Amino acid sequence: MSAPPLDTCLDTAHHLADIAGAIAREVWFGPAVTDFKADGSALTEADTRIETRLREVLESRHPDHGILGEEFGGAALDREFVWVIDPIDGTRQFGARLMNFGVLIALCHRGRPVLGIIDQPLAGARYAAAEGLGVTLNGTAIAARQTTALSQATVAIANPASFPEEMREPADAIAQAARMTVYDGGCLAYGALARGQIDLCLNGPDLDPHDICAVVPVVEQAGGTITDWEGRPLTLASEGAILAAATPALHAQAFDRLTRHDPVWIP
Amino acid sequence: MSAPPLDTCLDTAHHLADIAGAIAREVWFGPAVTDFKADGSALTEADTRIETRLREVLESRHPDHGILGEEFGGAALDREFVWVIDPIDGTRQFGARLMNFGVLIALCHRGRPVLGIIDQPLAGARYAAAEGLGVTLNGTAIAARQTTALSQATVAIANPASFPEEMREPADAIAQAARMTVYDGGCLAYGALARGQIDLCLNGPDLDPHDICAVVPVVEQAGGTITDWEGRPLTLASEGAILAAATPALHAQAFDRLTRHDPVWIP
Repeated sequence: MSAPPLDTCLDTAHHLADIAGAIAREVWFGPAVTDFKADGSALTEADTRIETRLREVLESRHPDHGILGEEFGGAALDREFVWVIDPIDGTRQFGARLMNFGVLIALCHRGRPVLGIIDQPLAGARYAAAEGLGVTLNGTAIAARQTTALSQATVAIANPASFPEEMREPADAIAQAARMTVYDGGCLAYGALARGQIDLCLNGPDLDPHDICAVVPVVEQAGGTITDWEGRPLTLASEGAILAAATPALHAQAFDRLTRHDPVWIP
Repeated sequence: MSAPPLDTCLDTAHHLADIAGAIAREVWFGPAVTDFKADGSALTEADTRIETRLREVLESRHPDHGILGEEFGGAALDREFVWVIDPIDGTRQFGARLMNFGVLIALCHRGRPVLGIIDQPLAGARYAAAEGLGVTLNGTAIAARQTTALSQATVAIANPASFPEEMREPADAIAQAARMTVYDGGCLAYGALARGQIDLCLNGPDLDPHDICAVVPVVEQAGGTITDWEGRPLTLASEGAILAAATPALHAQAFDRLTRHDPVWIP
């Protein structure tokens, strides 16, 4: 069986996001959870419901593809194409009925993320990208800003508490050098980067492939640069901290900051 | 002229939230801002557009009421009824096209907040409360959870960086004693408290009356308790840090933590 064209896979990804969004909205607006079970399972009810449905669709539409999901792990990860799913990225925020969460859907080809969707189902805001097809917000083409200087940059940093001690200093230095900093560095910040509203995204080292893969094509198709904190390209096997920037020059500047670990910052 | 009944004012408040939400959605989904002006005015374009329209409506519908708005300050603040408006609470998040922002509309009677709306226009999530009329999420009555133990509580703390040094220690102690902590302690956390998904909200001392007044009736009508960090009731004149809890017992427990400033916490 020959590989499906990427636009067919993008259709599938939109279908998955539609299904995920409907369940997420139903749970978010539904009755309050009065207590969590000891194992925290009430928190992940939406996650498991969504991933179960998405796996059914993928197994039916693309039986020769692999699947890696946050809730139910990996299956057939040696296949040429592997779908990567985070049903609710930001489960704690979702559980607390806040807004800083999203649905992440990615497709990797030989380990490289080539398709990604970042969807905020309550807002009806969907960032979708595929290699060669560009990136859109709700169907309209978007692009990153041409910011090259950190002093002109809007920076999104994940909750500073997620950074280990040795990473906090360079992250703080970047925040202080930037024009504006927000501490809402969840998946939606990468979408905002792709549409030219955020210039730099910095995440702590607590990320897994299902947090990472979907944001890669969104950033890259917008013209941005995204790597891990060693400067390596991101793959299906990537874990840990990531750094995304609107331009290669800005990425280089921030990366230099992170690797030099120099406590003195001269803007 | 006799005072209007509160349900009439609540109708006005919903109308104001509709107008604000339409503008906020238009700007949020609109073209990217390619640069900020030196005075940051691009960031507050939506704020000023919204407040201008809301003031027009209020001056037409309630000409004998005062108005306090974030953008254009106070007018006739000595009147029996004063409206308090924050067109976009969370301007930086809105400017970066993230989700952690809301529209705040309140009405004070002799300085006491008696009506409040917390609206997230992208999500279509509106918390609305008025004295004697209860509190609703999108028209459905809601109530706070009956949590009394900090160890069972979900806590929302505003970005820890917004706390001065001496407040960070008790805030951290509360976070560590809680069952779950989220650092999205914006206005929407107070709505989530009112619907029983968050038990405790803690804000840094950077709040103004337009950040505070709307959340007071939402929390109180849900059965919760909300005060400043001195334990005083909140009024049109309140500024600084606030503390809200799902129950009086939980409020007392957290308040004790905050005022004792005891570095050792035994859960």
